[in-house]
Amino acid sequence: MSATSLSQRPTVNRQFILVARPVGLPKESDFELIELPLPPLTEGQILLRTHFLSVDPYMRSRISGIRTYADPVNIGQRMVGGTVGEVIESKNPKFQVGEFYEGYWGWQEYFISTGDRLRKLDPSSARISTALGVLGMPGMTAYFGLLDICNPQPGETVLVSGAAGAVGSLVGQIAKIIGCRAVGIAGTDEKVAWITNDLGFDAAFNYKSTDNYVEALKKVCPNGIDCYFDNVGGDITDAVFPVLNSKSRIAVCGQIAQYNAIKPEPGLRNFIYLLTKQARAEGFLVYQFADRYPEGVAQMAKWVAEGKLKYREQVVEGFDKAPAALIGLFHGDNT
Amino acid sequence: MSATSLSQRPTVNRQFILVARPVGLPKESDFELIELPLPPLTEGQILLRTHFLSVDPYMRSRISGIRTYADPVNIGQRMVGGTVGEVIESKNPKFQVGEFYEGYWGWQEYFISTGDRLRKLDPSSARISTALGVLGMPGMTAYFGLLDICNPQPGETVLVSGAAGAVGSLVGQIAKIIGCRAVGIAGTDEKVAWITNDLGFDAAFNYKSTDNYVEALKKVCPNGIDCYFDNVGGDITDAVFPVLNSKSRIAVCGQIAQYNAIKPEPGLRNFIYLLTKQARAEGFLVYQFADRYPEGVAQMAKWVAEGKLKYREQVVEGFDKAPAALIGLFHGDNT
Repeated sequence: MSATSLSQRPTVNRQFILVARPVGLPKESDFELIELPLPPLTEGQILLRTHFLSVDPYMRSRISGIRTYADPVNIGQRMVGGTVGEVIESKNPKFQVGEFYEGYWGWQEYFISTGDRLRKLDPSSARISTALGVLGMPGMTAYFGLLDICNPQPGETVLVSGAAGAVGSLVGQIAKIIGCRAVGIAGTDEKVAWITNDLGFDAAFNYKSTDNYVEALKKVCPNGIDCYFDNVGGDITDAVFPVLNSKSRIAVCGQIAQYNAIKPEPGLRNFIYLLTKQARAEGFLVYQFADRYPEGVAQMAKWVAEGKLKYREQVVEGFDKAPAALIGLFHGDNT
Repeated sequence: MSATSLSQRPTVNRQFILVARPVGLPKESDFELIELPLPPLTEGQILLRTHFLSVDPYMRSRISGIRTYADPVNIGQRMVGGTVGEVIESKNPKFQVGEFYEGYWGWQEYFISTGDRLRKLDPSSARISTALGVLGMPGMTAYFGLLDICNPQPGETVLVSGAAGAVGSLVGQIAKIIGCRAVGIAGTDEKVAWITNDLGFDAAFNYKSTDNYVEALKKVCPNGIDCYFDNVGGDITDAVFPVLNSKSRIAVCGQIAQYNAIKPEPGLRNFIYLLTKQARAEGFLVYQFADRYPEGVAQMAKWVAEGKLKYREQVVEGFDKAPAALIGLFHGDNT
C-alpha cells in the first residue's frame, strides 16, 4: 500500500441496524444508521467498498422476526441483503484491489471479508449492478422458477403477477423466448404499457383499475393458464384458480400481498381447484438452485447480449436512502 | 342357452336416476328409482348382473352439475359409479356366462355391454368386492397418490386425513410398509382406535373432539409433517400448513369438506407456507395412472396376501339403499 492510499482509507463504517420490528408496513424509524470503527485488516482479509446494495420483497419476512427458511434479522443486528462492491484493500493474495465482487454483506458501506462466498464479477462483460438484477438473484429466480418449477412448453400460456418487477419482467420475457404466450398483471398503466410495448408480453392488465380479476384473466388468457408464476399472492392469486387449465403448474415465488399482514387474512380455499384440475403448486427459494447458478448466469447473459432480454434498474443514490427504497417496494413505487 | 335360463332371464332393469341437483348435502329425494325394459341381446353383447356398486365421495361433485374433470350427471341421467358384476348371458365369444368383471356402469341392476372397458376378475384370488376397494379405485388412489405424488422416504412422517376411509386406511398402511411414520386424522374414537390398534398407524386423533388442530398435529407429528395425503380439505387441512416440514409434499386427493359447500367458504391463504417451506401441493385423479393399474393391483394384492395390508368393506345390502349409503359418506357414518 502506498502512503497516499493509506491516508484515504476509511476508518468509519456506516451500517443500518434494525431497531424495531415493523407491524404492518415497515417504517424508516424501524432502522437506525450507526457508525462503527473500521479496524485494520489482519492477514487473509480484504476490505470491500459497497457500490450497490439490493432491496427486495423477501426482506420483509426477515425483519418480521418469524423463523422461516432463514434466520430472522434480530433487533440491533445489521440489515441483510445482496451487495456488490470493490476491493479497496487486500491482505489476501487471491484478491486484488480494484476487483469487483457480489456478496451478501447487507446494508453497510464497507465490509471486511475473508473472501468466503464472494462471486467475482467481470465489469467488462456486464455492468456490475446486473449482479443484483438480471444476472443475480432476481434473474436466477426468474430463470429457475419458471423453467424448473413451471416447466412451460411452447404454445402454453404463462401468467406472471408482479409482472413489471425485477423477477416478473424477466419471467415474461423468458416465456416468450421459449415460445409461450406471456401474460402479465401489474399495478399501473405505465407498467402495463412497458411490459407489453417494450418487453413483448402478449397481454397484461392493471389490477388497480380492474374490478373483476377472474373476468380480466379470462379475457387476456383465452386458452386458460398453463403456468402461473406468483409474485404476489392475495386476491390476485385467488382469481387465477378458476382460469387454470388441467395439469397446470404454479411457481410460488413471492407473496408480497401477505408480507405486511399483521395476521393472515382468509382467502380462497384453493385445493379444490388443484384437485379438479390435477394442478401443482410449488414454493421455491432461489437458493435451492445455487449449484446451477453458473448455467443460469451464462444463459441469461447470452440472452441479454442477443438483445432478447431487456431489464431496467432503478438505482437510488445514497446509502442513507436504503430504508425508504425498501418501503417503496410495498407501495408499488419500484419496478 | 337352455330353456330354464331363458325363463329366468330378467326383463326389467332398475336404475337410479338423478332428479334434482343437491343443494348442500344430497338427499334421498334427489334420486329416483325407475324401471326400464331389458331388451334382448344383439350379436356381440353381454348381459351383466350387478353384484356390487360403489359409493364414493367424488360422486358429490358429479351430481353438482359443475363441469370438473368429468362430465356431470345431468338431471334424468343414470347415476354413475364403479361396479362389479357377473355375466349372465353372452352373445360375445370372448365373454362366458359366470365370469366376473369390474366396470363403471353405474347404479343399475343389469347392464348390457359390448365388453368395452371391463376388467376381468379372478374370484379365486380375491373376493370380487375388492375390485371396488383395496384392489380397485380406492386402492389405486392410495397406492399411486402416496407413492407417486408424495414420494415418501423411509423415516419420514406421513399424515393422512380421512384416515379410516377406504383410501386413507390404505395410505397409512402403505406408509408403514415402506418405513414411514404414519399418522391419521379421523372423526370418531372408534376409527382412531381401529387405525392405531388394528392397522398399525403410529398415532392418530379424533378431530371432532379436538379444539386446536395445530397443537394436536404438533403432538402426533413431533418431527413435523413430510407428506400429507389430503382427503378432506377445510379447517383440518388449514391446520396442517404450520406443521409442514421444509420440502414437504401434499397429495390433494379429496376435499370432502368442500363438496357440499353451497359456495366456497374462505380459508387459510396457504401459499405463504408453500413458499417459506419450499413445499409442493399437487392435485391428482387416479385415472391419470390408468396405464399403471396392473402394477398397482399386483403390488397391493401381494401385500394383502402377505397380511401387510388390512381392509374392511362396508357392504349395504339392497340395491335401493344406494342413495342412503352415499349420503352416509358425508355424515361420517361410513368407513
